Amino acid sequence: MTDLAAALAEAAAEIDAALDRVIPQSEGDESRLFEAMRYAAIGGGKRLRGFLVLEGAKQFGVGRSAALRAAAAVEMLHAYSLVHDDLPAMDDDDLRRGKPTVHIAFDEATAVLAGDALQANAFYVLSHEETHADPAVRAELCHCLARAAGPRGMCGGQMLDMLAEQATAPLEESAIGRLQLLKTGKLIEFAAEAGAILGKAPPTLRHALSAYGRDLGAAFQIADDLLDLTATPEQAGKATGKDAAAGKATLLGLLGPERAKLQAERLAQQAAHHLDSFGERADLLRALATYAIERRN
Amino acid sequence: MTDLAAALAEAAAEIDAALDRVIPQSEGDESRLFEAMRYAAIGGGKRLRGFLVLEGAKQFGVGRSAALRAAAAVEMLHAYSLVHDDLPAMDDDDLRRGKPTVHIAFDEATAVLAGDALQANAFYVLSHEETHADPAVRAELCHCLARAAGPRGMCGGQMLDMLAEQATAPLEESAIGRLQLLKTGKLIEFAAEAGAILGKAPPTLRHALSAYGRDLGAAFQIADDLLDLTATPEQAGKATGKDAAAGKATLLGLLGPERAKLQAERLAQQAAHHLDSFGERADLLRALATYAIERRN
Repeated sequence: MTDLAAALAEAAAEIDAALDRVIPQSEGDESRLFEAMRYAAIGGGKRLRGFLVLEGAKQFGVGRSAALRAAAAVEMLHAYSLVHDDLPAMDDDDLRRGKPTVHIAFDEATAVLAGDALQANAFYVLSHEETHADPAVRAELCHCLARAAGPRGMCGGQMLDMLAEQATAPLEESAIGRLQLLKTGKLIEFAAEAGAILGKAPPTLRHALSAYGRDLGAAFQIADDLLDLTATPEQAGKATGKDAAAGKATLLGLLGPERAKLQAERLAQQAAHHLDSFGERADLLRALATYAIERRN
Repeated sequence: MTDLAAALAEAAAEIDAALDRVIPQSEGDESRLFEAMRYAAIGGGKRLRGFLVLEGAKQFGVGRSAALRAAAAVEMLHAYSLVHDDLPAMDDDDLRRGKPTVHIAFDEATAVLAGDALQANAFYVLSHEETHADPAVRAELCHCLARAAGPRGMCGGQMLDMLAEQATAPLEESAIGRLQLLKTGKLIEFAAEAGAILGKAPPTLRHALSAYGRDLGAAFQIADDLLDLTATPEQAGKATGKDAAAGKATLLGLLGPERAKLQAERLAQQAAHHLDSFGERADLLRALATYAIERRN
């Protein structure tokens, strides 16, 4: 566990440095936009998605600089989704990663724009020659990210989540699973798979990583919901207890804490099992599956 | 002029059909999102950007189906920017293309999400194998669109526009030019250039088209501002007179109608001049430069 904690911290620092390189520096009158993008994306966060990119890339000997650019792109996409989710018209949250949210620290219009610009910048970075010399790799990265982020991925899941809050009857287990696969699972799946794309891995290994990402993401989601129930805002770095209060559609709400925890454990084991064809180099990914269900923040 | 009007109408119908194919059909619980995307992107609008893609592609014998997919991607990107610009926190507009804006017809959260999903879908379509067999072309399309849409393009221009409204001193001519180049010019430039990318055109011809797009975009912007001053909401399909009332930074406001009109004419001539290396096949693009400054809506 200590190895993983150190590796996560090291990756987070490297990813922050990569984000610093790929988000424009403050200059010119529009620097308020760049500052808001930096505020949203740099510093804080577990960097789970970026870490998955880096560790996936490691399995195939991908260069660190390319892997870090892809990790930064995935983290920009994730940061944009948080900025927009926190907007007054959406979840209306004031606190994120222990800091005021972007629309509080700046203003609502700047938050909308910063999110929009972070999304565009993610595709800019992935499609850039510096990320990979082979344009087929760059096109594939853009394609898979766009699918994970778009109407049949994250945005579709967010819509389902909003509708679930307004629904009169609670969702069934399969509907909640689909909601969470779309809302958060698809991007985590892409993060786990991105290193295989960069490394032009054989399809079986690429699919093993994306299956790992899918199960890991589901386990993390349940663990997040359990934390939302039990952690203080200080521990979580954001408002807690809101999901239960808002009647959010979660497996936790449907199954209760005991069964939800068992399900998370089953998913984490299943995630690790997908890595059976990988050697020692995947040990941190295996440890991450354990961490997913044991973490306290 | 009649030829151009007919060609524009034909292109608009074809682009609507392409958008209908690339935006998910209503199905499943998240269809509210798809409906909002369709509402925002399909029907209405001059399709200037899509038309530029199609006519640019024609110069290099690009297949119609590929050109239409790229045109649809550019129009989705443009539609997303309008949906977000119209939000209460931004320009707070109720009317767009003669219809209630997305946040009025649906709700604010759905409008944020629909814009986000349209942006992702634009990259999804450009990076898809169906758009071009050569991945280098797909990667280049994504790269150039992301640059035009991101912090150093449209989003940066939008930020400048917001700041200009709050500024105490009016912007100088060069600052207004830069604002408009970023806010609307870069995407129009990309639209003009996309056909050359699809057709793997020689750099000189590709640059001629992007220079044409840049000047055309600037001419259109001045003409838009003049229309905002003189047209009724019915003619424009959106609220008019708001720019002047809001003290928006426009060349029209700085130069006055007479000089602004002269400048638009100069830009339109310059735009057409960039097409000198092209033959008869560029006649519709030439006619478009004239139309830019003569249109009434």
